[in-house]
Amino acid sequence: MSLYTYEALPVAEWFRRNKELAGFHNPTRALYQTIRELTENSLDATETYGILPTVYLRVKIEDEQKSWVSVYAEDNGIGIPGDEIPNVFGRVFYSSKYRIKQHRGVFGLGLKMVVLYAQSTTNKPVYVRSATVKSDKIYEYQIMIDTNKNSPIILDRREYPNRQKWHGTAVKVYLEGNWLGAKKRIEEYIKRTAIIAPYAEIVFKGPDLELWLKRRTTKLPPAPKEGLPHPKSVDVDTLKQMIQASRGMTLLEFLTENFDAVGEGTAKAFLEWAGFNPNAKVAGLTPEELVRLVEKMKQYEGWRRPRADWLSPVGAELLEIGAKAILGAEAVFAVTRRPESYGGHPFIVEAAVAWGGQIPPSDKPILLRYANKIPLLYDEGADVARKVVDEFHWDNYKVKFPAPLAVIIHVCSTKIPYASAGKEAIAEVPEIEKEMRLALRDAAKKLRLYLSRKEREQELLNKYISLAKYVDEVAHNFSIITGVDKGRLVDSLYKLIEKKLGVTVEDVIKHATAVTAQAEELAAPQ
Amino acid sequence: MSLYTYEALPVAEWFRRNKELAGFHNPTRALYQTIRELTENSLDATETYGILPTVYLRVKIEDEQKSWVSVYAEDNGIGIPGDEIPNVFGRVFYSSKYRIKQHRGVFGLGLKMVVLYAQSTTNKPVYVRSATVKSDKIYEYQIMIDTNKNSPIILDRREYPNRQKWHGTAVKVYLEGNWLGAKKRIEEYIKRTAIIAPYAEIVFKGPDLELWLKRRTTKLPPAPKEGLPHPKSVDVDTLKQMIQASRGMTLLEFLTENFDAVGEGTAKAFLEWAGFNPNAKVAGLTPEELVRLVEKMKQYEGWRRPRADWLSPVGAELLEIGAKAILGAEAVFAVTRRPESYGGHPFIVEAAVAWGGQIPPSDKPILLRYANKIPLLYDEGADVARKVVDEFHWDNYKVKFPAPLAVIIHVCSTKIPYASAGKEAIAEVPEIEKEMRLALRDAAKKLRLYLSRKEREQELLNKYISLAKYVDEVAHNFSIITGVDKGRLVDSLYKLIEKKLGVTVEDVIKHATAVTAQAEELAAPQ
Repeated sequence: MSLYTYEALPVAEWFRRNKELAGFHNPTRALYQTIRELTENSLDATETYGILPTVYLRVKIEDEQKSWVSVYAEDNGIGIPGDEIPNVFGRVFYSSKYRIKQHRGVFGLGLKMVVLYAQSTTNKPVYVRSATVKSDKIYEYQIMIDTNKNSPIILDRREYPNRQKWHGTAVKVYLEGNWLGAKKRIEEYIKRTAIIAPYAEIVFKGPDLELWLKRRTTKLPPAPKEGLPHPKSVDVDTLKQMIQASRGMTLLEFLTENFDAVGEGTAKAFLEWAGFNPNAKVAGLTPEELVRLVEKMKQYEGWRRPRADWLSPVGAELLEIGAKAILGAEAVFAVTRRPESYGGHPFIVEAAVAWGGQIPPSDKPILLRYANKIPLLYDEGADVARKVVDEFHWDNYKVKFPAPLAVIIHVCSTKIPYASAGKEAIAEVPEIEKEMRLALRDAAKKLRLYLSRKEREQELLNKYISLAKYVDEVAHNFSIITGVDKGRLVDSLYKLIEKKLGVTVEDVIKHATAVTAQAEELAAPQ
Repeated sequence: MSLYTYEALPVAEWFRRNKELAGFHNPTRALYQTIRELTENSLDATETYGILPTVYLRVKIEDEQKSWVSVYAEDNGIGIPGDEIPNVFGRVFYSSKYRIKQHRGVFGLGLKMVVLYAQSTTNKPVYVRSATVKSDKIYEYQIMIDTNKNSPIILDRREYPNRQKWHGTAVKVYLEGNWLGAKKRIEEYIKRTAIIAPYAEIVFKGPDLELWLKRRTTKLPPAPKEGLPHPKSVDVDTLKQMIQASRGMTLLEFLTENFDAVGEGTAKAFLEWAGFNPNAKVAGLTPEELVRLVEKMKQYEGWRRPRADWLSPVGAELLEIGAKAILGAEAVFAVTRRPESYGGHPFIVEAAVAWGGQIPPSDKPILLRYANKIPLLYDEGADVARKVVDEFHWDNYKVKFPAPLAVIIHVCSTKIPYASAGKEAIAEVPEIEKEMRLALRDAAKKLRLYLSRKEREQELLNKYISLAKYVDEVAHNFSIITGVDKGRLVDSLYKLIEKKLGVTVEDVIKHATAVTAQAEELAAPQ
């Protein structure tokens, strides 16, 4: 073979050969990743459009010897138009239009990787059934990907009348997968999803695992809006493409119509500062001017910060509901920070600390990481959140390890700085790191208050109990001396103690019951 | 905008938008990554073809205010044919033909990411000059990438006569880059490259950093050979493509001609075991038979292991030369393990432990990670090598921390299981983890021997010195009693001690000198 032989590799073929980049390392990771991608598509297709998600997932062992499994996922989402189904499942880089808006599946790649991995291990097509909202028809397809052409091969196509006005998408794939290897992670993934999305109903059926995560609330977080790019986040190539679509405009029009948080006043002030004529046509900009415009847009300090209504944080209330229900925590304190931005991309950090209850005491906090509501389970060591939690001064917040403490950190952004296409760790972006630290501090302050109060309550109860021990004897002796009825003396003594300590006998009983219950639970066989 | 809007994103545009996946997070990482990609291309274009590499790198600040820098890289490699230059630099997924052979740049993506990042920050083309071996002409180009068409835009093209018969490639790009931020990592990267490739001459010139890593040896590691896929590593899609190219063959012919380590005997035994007719034409296989064939190929235990001559380990000798020269270690012990395989991909693990000298003592070993001779500097926490080194029982090997200890771990493979396209961490593959552990054990055993010997020497020298203290006095007294000349008595007493301890006065002097030199070096201002 010559030294100088070159070839163009079709895109689908490239991804098939490099599947570990998208998290498809081996049959264990691949099965986990398949569940993840399908679940995330289902949640994106529902809650983003104001629909309370109901997701049904099933894993079945199809052939034990060959390690073949099938994965079925069904949702009640907005569905995919019949004619688009083949491209959505069978063409890499084909997806719902790129919008500046928070999505779980930012890369639009996961679904195709599922199909590619499935067909390269079992040679079987993906089965899809879908109907859009109010559609008269339900469409069914069986599709494979022609990796050399990067185009779908349609093996089967059917239409049915949609009498029930069902909408949503159902997908089934056959793949080589290691159920035993992936089981624990899948269980963890689904439970963690339920923590961050308590408004979702998720049913999972596996060979020896059934999970039914019930809807805990019907309150949805506000759906993210679509947005325009922030002037600080635009590069030269993007600007060129935007100008192509607005050739007739003046610079002033172009800036106010195409960018986020830029009104006429801001645009004028900027153009003057940058030395551009507001009335010049954008089509007439030279390449050098274009580059200078981008630089100036990056340098300008007068822009308003990116708008955050493209983002959809979970909110402290939903976080607390989710964490209490799934972790069985005694108390949860959650915080949603104000929007910030890095490189022109808006983001919000949320944090929650969960204490006690069923959380097992450990030497450092259990960390639950999320990005755009996706639970991140792998590569914890590479995630900036782990660093922040490890460096946090817990002793300032009355936490002494081992402690029954779990920390939830959620970052939402129109652009999560993932370190890999497998979407498992958030990179060290200083702005995000700082917000994580502040969010944790805010949540930990609430925890400290709670722990202080508990400590004080405990002290009071101890005092109450130690005083109450003498009530009977004192009342007895006083009764003999004074002739007053002992029962009345007992009552007034208790009242005296309760007034002094601010604790009632009911508190004591409640507390004692709680302690007993906890002790019984701990003693119960696992 | 409708709920149901879809679009196909051109591949180059997709990568431009997701550049952090390839390590281009921000101006610091992007500058580092640019140096890395260009250096690795240069090394691949030289040593892989038996040429001793000479690489010249230069970073220049072009515009301080805009953070524009230029990066220039030149090598003496095999060059790129003139007509291929535009595609090699201007078309994503176009690269030298996919071969089963160890390369640094396995993804063929890095170079295009450099060009994409450069043009999207400065709107300037990449400059390329190249001549192939024995070419009569030198070609010069200025190229940009049309991201919508994924094709090169040629802005300038020149040809010159190649009178000196120069061969190699020179590249210059202008990009937004943070020199101050990246400087330390770049220095580290180049030094670490020199450790693993002591046969390379690397000159680096930066704004306030000059490095000249001289060639320490003219011995090149054996160049990797090209290979065929191992039967265990093939999936259904690959097999289909291979069959397309061999439609006329029988199954027996197909297996023996297209696979590694499969002779006629092996092929026959396998086909009989798997229940296939050796004389059936491959073109006639049904889809079901094809899938069954792949499964059986995976399950069969009778294959020979993958051949390792596709691999190019550095070798213990070169590792020791490199580590001594660059780390300034007192002693280095290196080990190259035997080839192993995971999922049909051959790999070799090499490890070295470097002790003392200029290595500063620290609480845990300094770790230098390499994959296919690429130094890995980021995401250490996510790398399986860090885990192996941390879990290693150093106390079994006479190492007590703080210790002046550095560990080098090198994995070479036709397929490194990277966790991301940024190529910074090796994933947890059990087979590789095991080999790392064994390599470390083998190297640490040698270190233990060395440390034991040092310990024994030290003891002997101490004894020598404590006995020598009395020589003069004893000789003096004996000389008076016996009348024998004191000088002769001194001589024979020393000989007695030396015979008894096996240590000579020269050893003592050498040791004392070394200790003094070390003390002076430590005391010298840094």
